[in-house]
Amino acid sequence: MPRVSQDHLDARRRQILDGARTCFARYGYEGATVRRLEEATGLSRGAIFHHFRDKESLFLALAEDDARRMADVVSREGLVQVMRDLITGGEADERPADWLGTRLEVSRRLRTDPEFRAHWAQRSAQLTTATRERLERQREAGNLRDDVPVPVLASYLELVLEGVVSHLAMGLPADDLEPVLDVVEESVRRFRRG
Amino acid sequence: MPRVSQDHLDARRRQILDGARTCFARYGYEGATVRRLEEATGLSRGAIFHHFRDKESLFLALAEDDARRMADVVSREGLVQVMRDLITGGEADERPADWLGTRLEVSRRLRTDPEFRAHWAQRSAQLTTATRERLERQREAGNLRDDVPVPVLASYLELVLEGVVSHLAMGLPADDLEPVLDVVEESVRRFRRG
Repeated sequence: MPRVSQDHLDARRRQILDGARTCFARYGYEGATVRRLEEATGLSRGAIFHHFRDKESLFLALAEDDARRMADVVSREGLVQVMRDLITGGEADERPADWLGTRLEVSRRLRTDPEFRAHWAQRSAQLTTATRERLERQREAGNLRDDVPVPVLASYLELVLEGVVSHLAMGLPADDLEPVLDVVEESVRRFRRG
Repeated sequence: MPRVSQDHLDARRRQILDGARTCFARYGYEGATVRRLEEATGLSRGAIFHHFRDKESLFLALAEDDARRMADVVSREGLVQVMRDLITGGEADERPADWLGTRLEVSRRLRTDPEFRAHWAQRSAQLTTATRERLERQREAGNLRDDVPVPVLASYLELVLEGVVSHLAMGLPADDLEPVLDVVEESVRRFRRG
């Protein structure tokens, strides 16, 4: 068996994750059969499960991958920007519909699967951490209201995010949400109105 | 066949709705079999389907009943109070857990059933109407911020409500949401902060 480079392994792993993301988004977790995962990734089951122990591990890797990317956007631009990306469709290369698909599947399994919930709680902490850290930096820069503790403002933003995900999941129109997110953004800022 | 009074019919209908609510909340729509509906209501299938054409009609009647009660609370006390009732468990006689069960089932079916979505769109309008009317009254009374149109503020509150429902559905702790709802409430009010 030839030795393969780390770059090659990483690229293969990325190929599997990208295909699987589309597949889970389209068919849901239960509906994403091994055959469909093979079609979506263009790889055999042997290749797929060489990189991921089972479907569960693959889905978790995907959800973690998305959570990490979401935390990156939060660090750079804030959680409200994540919501704006969701409602407008996001950056062209980000395939937000697929991203939303994974997020919805996570929400669904959190509701119905206590084991998954416990497992996920540890991993989702990074979004909360990224949100709080960004808010702390905004507060230090004097951009944030200072009459409400940062953890409360972080919980507030995460609650609105859940609302946005739920709204999109229900197929409701999102084009009227832009001014709503302006209200959200403004309500965490240092601000004066009459 | 004896003639029955309207009061009797109404009481029987109420008995069916109350039993069915508990049943749908516990087992979900699919899991609420006719046998389980009989057990939960204490009535035969003949009696149940004398009042409601089929399970679908029964569920819709229940969801409409809840939407109407929710609109009543909104008219009297505002949508933020509906959210507070949800996170604290609500009034003792309201059985909010069952109420949440119906709400979640509605959310789930909105996601997965386009026909139900079209049907529901007409009925859910009353919550939006109640929310907007209350906000209009608050604005006339000088309690509301006046730099954002009422429909935007109504959409904002409905989005946060979706977030609360989703949060509770995922089994996340709700005891830290009280100060978050203070932020929400305050962000629609006429207010000045430094």
